[in-house]
Amino acid sequence: MSQKPEILSVEEYKTDAKWLKLENIKWKDQTGKERGWEAANRSTRSKAGVDSVHILAILDHPSKPPSTIIIEQFRPPAGATVIELPAGLVDEGEDAESTALRELHEETGYGTGKSGDGVSVEDVSSVLVKDPGMTGANFNLVTVKVKLNENDPEPEQHLEEGEHIVKRVVPLKDLYDVLQTYAKDGFVVDGLLGSIALGWKLAGKYA
Amino acid sequence: MSQKPEILSVEEYKTDAKWLKLENIKWKDQTGKERGWEAANRSTRSKAGVDSVHILAILDHPSKPPSTIIIEQFRPPAGATVIELPAGLVDEGEDAESTALRELHEETGYGTGKSGDGVSVEDVSSVLVKDPGMTGANFNLVTVKVKLNENDPEPEQHLEEGEHIVKRVVPLKDLYDVLQTYAKDGFVVDGLLGSIALGWKLAGKYA
Repeated sequence: MSQKPEILSVEEYKTDAKWLKLENIKWKDQTGKERGWEAANRSTRSKAGVDSVHILAILDHPSKPPSTIIIEQFRPPAGATVIELPAGLVDEGEDAESTALRELHEETGYGTGKSGDGVSVEDVSSVLVKDPGMTGANFNLVTVKVKLNENDPEPEQHLEEGEHIVKRVVPLKDLYDVLQTYAKDGFVVDGLLGSIALGWKLAGKYA
Repeated sequence: MSQKPEILSVEEYKTDAKWLKLENIKWKDQTGKERGWEAANRSTRSKAGVDSVHILAILDHPSKPPSTIIIEQFRPPAGATVIELPAGLVDEGEDAESTALRELHEETGYGTGKSGDGVSVEDVSSVLVKDPGMTGANFNLVTVKVKLNENDPEPEQHLEEGEHIVKRVVPLKDLYDVLQTYAKDGFVVDGLLGSIALGWKLAGKYA
């Protein structure tokens, strides 16, 4: 006797926090039993219903191996400098593709913030969740191909005041090992980036 | 003039929530400026300092392609049935390996909850973070190899009262496409699982 689970109500707990909120969810489980669950969410989600995008850039260079761009950024909630994909919150009125191209340009300097000039969106994932036992936080994983010419210089970032982000170009084939080294050196690796690297490595072993 | 950023203080906001908490972080940025940040965290983290493990199982069968196990589970914070890796919170006194073997046994039936009998931990990632702009939530990604014999039956799950988890064995080479189909059918895919599948697919294209 199994029925489709459903959300009955969502109530916000009172707090003085501004950017985040805690919620008390009432839901009905597969047996029809009413149960409770707590969730944390951003207060900033745009009408599009997606919090953020993460950008997997593929740098396609005539004489260098296919590479991606990772960033180093201090993240107060982790209390550490985290190695991540370029990423950003979706602004009101943006879609996943435009957010991805804008953030790629800001955080890494690649592209112009729009498609064209050798920069194209190759893939947009379905809406993915980050930690669905704790939060509804969600995102699109956007793969962006960047076609480079032999002597293109490394472009400059366009960071906002107060943003401190270091970028690094890494051949995809070296990504897993590079992340291992970061971890040994006291950095913390983001789970999405670590998972992409693991998937790549497993393909080399089991594909 | 750059200095190492650091956390100055972490204060908990008052709420009536039990399992989650919101925190007000004061930190000093790379220019020495004092700044604020909000974070959401679980109240349940064990002394080991890691919230959870996610388990990438590799089923090694004599005549079937290398496969992994994914689960379907309704997640109230996402308001949807999420397709995920088997996973679970680290109990007090457990390490990543023992949590992984216990949860793999409970959620999928594979193994005995301990190592041996063809079940071995192949890799434990560094401590990874899930959404470090919002939370310190962290985990280990544990790769577990399960050696099967030709006629081994599909084992039964050992779920707790109130757990409703459907498991599914998927050849690694089909994982990306299987997840695409789930998304089309109205399920939500977990970001870590989606990232592993993307990494595998990219290796096929760019390795």
